[in-house]
Amino acid sequence: MASDLLIRGGRPHGLAPADILVREGKVVAMGPCLQPPPGVPVEDVHGALVLPSLVEAHTHLDKSLWDMPWHANTAGPSLMDKIDHERHARRAWDIDPQRQSARQVALSVAQGSLHILSHVDIDTDQGLWCLEGVLATRERCRALVDIQLVAFPQSGLMRRPGTLALMDQALTMGCEWVGGLDPYAIDRDPKGQLDAIFALSQKHGRPIDIHLHEPEEMGALTLDLVFERVRALGLQGQVTISHAFCLGSARSELVEPLIAELAALDIAVMTTGPAGWSAPPLKRLLAAGVRVSSGSDGVRDTWKHYGNADMLERATFLGLRNRLTTDADMALALEVCTHGGAQVMRLHGHGLAVGKDADLFTVRAENIAHAVAAHPPRELVVRRGTVVARNGQCLHLATPSPDPIVFTKEPA
Amino acid sequence: MASDLLIRGGRPHGLAPADILVREGKVVAMGPCLQPPPGVPVEDVHGALVLPSLVEAHTHLDKSLWDMPWHANTAGPSLMDKIDHERHARRAWDIDPQRQSARQVALSVAQGSLHILSHVDIDTDQGLWCLEGVLATRERCRALVDIQLVAFPQSGLMRRPGTLALMDQALTMGCEWVGGLDPYAIDRDPKGQLDAIFALSQKHGRPIDIHLHEPEEMGALTLDLVFERVRALGLQGQVTISHAFCLGSARSELVEPLIAELAALDIAVMTTGPAGWSAPPLKRLLAAGVRVSSGSDGVRDTWKHYGNADMLERATFLGLRNRLTTDADMALALEVCTHGGAQVMRLHGHGLAVGKDADLFTVRAENIAHAVAAHPPRELVVRRGTVVARNGQCLHLATPSPDPIVFTKEPA
Repeated sequence: MASDLLIRGGRPHGLAPADILVREGKVVAMGPCLQPPPGVPVEDVHGALVLPSLVEAHTHLDKSLWDMPWHANTAGPSLMDKIDHERHARRAWDIDPQRQSARQVALSVAQGSLHILSHVDIDTDQGLWCLEGVLATRERCRALVDIQLVAFPQSGLMRRPGTLALMDQALTMGCEWVGGLDPYAIDRDPKGQLDAIFALSQKHGRPIDIHLHEPEEMGALTLDLVFERVRALGLQGQVTISHAFCLGSARSELVEPLIAELAALDIAVMTTGPAGWSAPPLKRLLAAGVRVSSGSDGVRDTWKHYGNADMLERATFLGLRNRLTTDADMALALEVCTHGGAQVMRLHGHGLAVGKDADLFTVRAENIAHAVAAHPPRELVVRRGTVVARNGQCLHLATPSPDPIVFTKEPA
Repeated sequence: MASDLLIRGGRPHGLAPADILVREGKVVAMGPCLQPPPGVPVEDVHGALVLPSLVEAHTHLDKSLWDMPWHANTAGPSLMDKIDHERHARRAWDIDPQRQSARQVALSVAQGSLHILSHVDIDTDQGLWCLEGVLATRERCRALVDIQLVAFPQSGLMRRPGTLALMDQALTMGCEWVGGLDPYAIDRDPKGQLDAIFALSQKHGRPIDIHLHEPEEMGALTLDLVFERVRALGLQGQVTISHAFCLGSARSELVEPLIAELAALDIAVMTTGPAGWSAPPLKRLLAAGVRVSSGSDGVRDTWKHYGNADMLERATFLGLRNRLTTDADMALALEVCTHGGAQVMRLHGHGLAVGKDADLFTVRAENIAHAVAAHPPRELVVRRGTVVARNGQCLHLATPSPDPIVFTKEPA
């Protein structure tokens, strides 16, 4: 719901103090000493830093164990071990995708992420169960958060016949993105998987997001196969490569030509800034003009217990991983977690400026570098002019009710 | 001050519920349904996880900017740039070591770290100013925290004549450890620096802690020079290598012989689990029998804005950096941040068990893996039976008073 609001006494982007006037969900004025028109409520944020909403541009809403009973992590070490373990655990542990996606959405909103790009597992064991659950959450939470979904063949596409037809159905049901996964390392048939997902993309007119964990030469060659298809089909600006560990190679003769081609074909890169894996060089990518987004990836799932869906902490991780230490460099980490994700999700209304959607949060920090270093709790989260979270608590998803969220007034 | 206390309703180590009875600062009984002797106060922790106090085994108490006005990070990219920038900023920005070390101690105590091994810069510009400040804090905080100090030649030893005499004086004044720093990369005279610090160690009968950022072959060779001296002087068990980036080399033929020799000579390794640097392999070191400790390193200093002195979050970082995902592996991360540090600091009373010092904290977590994954706020921190922090706030260092902290009763 688009609301009216005057946010008083904040420091937008950490610059000079300015009030922010919101009418019908849009920022209509920013400046000192604005007066609220009659009937417009006022929130005084007492000198807090005001930033545009965070963008969670890579997660898995269907697989979080958040708030569920503890299950020891017993998955084996390989990627395939973890994939098989998870498929088994979904039913055995009752990881209900509707319940769990709603919990993770509440966590995201509480921390200022109001836009989520989520992969959803599609496989021949679960069928479309995960998607149905997440679609129900998306419907219920329309007033809280923008959600885009990727039909994601987590267990492989070519190795599990029947998956492609389910992906096709998922796109008809409402997924905005076609997903892919390690075409060589998992599917063992890079040409087969890439031809299949690019054909789906063509059929439905949808963009593509490929998980690519393949390292070094293997990943580089798979990227080259992606480049071929983007060029041939004119899909510039329509493809994202998630993780892209091969771009973290120490060998610049391998990496530099890949970065140049990513820029030339306007292919985006999503990085979580992983501490334990080779990671795409954030500054180098941005300098080359590549769109870069970030995300939490799995949040306390069967793969790992870590994660909390905090995209401001994610900016900290990006900073630590990429040795971003000057104030200007640290601002890049936040930029990736806000504007970068908005670019990938094509959120044209995103950004804290006059004329944009009033999607923002406040935090007790002196400036952007401070916010990135310390990721303090979010004091206030506003979506389209409505307060949706206070002091780290989402105001509208406390109960497991399946009813859609409709804003009347803020709960006591 | 050693106190009496009954901690009721906790789950020590995440195991079965057990009360903990403390008399005169020591744990004298652990078990279900203990009754408090007359006059012994009771703290009910309502099912919280109870863990032994955290050990901050590598930090720089003299250089934190915590709670100071914001200074943009303008240091250049090289190690020497940062060193020179910091020496200048100390006076220019008034980074008073007494005030700042007290602030960081309060932060540590609030988060359950009750033992701190801190380096203190000794150089020909500052002289012993930093040490005097930190010594004053140590004296003031004796009732709160154990502090051991390393006389640390941050600006180089051989390259700045006069530093060695100051180091000698620092050891007389109360430093327990002799520090070293990149004998080749910073001092450009590995034989000179190592001979000098081992001689100081011999003269004062003190252990050695060397910052070693040198990568690959350079670091490996410097380690070999350390091994030579440990063998020749019989200093087994008396040396710690901090950072040890060379152990993070991907080349096992370089790393494995080094690990074997570290184990043979009982040389400890301190790692922060750095996301952006090559890091010693934690599991491999522990499996070889090497003592491993961890620390926050600098906490919001002129080198970088990051850091908050939370050693439970540090366990998260160790876990992420070392891909520790099973519950058992995650427990290793906590072990390094508790027992590992206690081994290095030779804290014989450390450990949550009958007969040990009652130094512990509680946290709202289901088990150790959960605590490592989420590092929730510390609800209660107890030192020698006295409550020293509650809900993330240190109870005894709120004011900048220089008076020693003497426990009477808990402030309201």
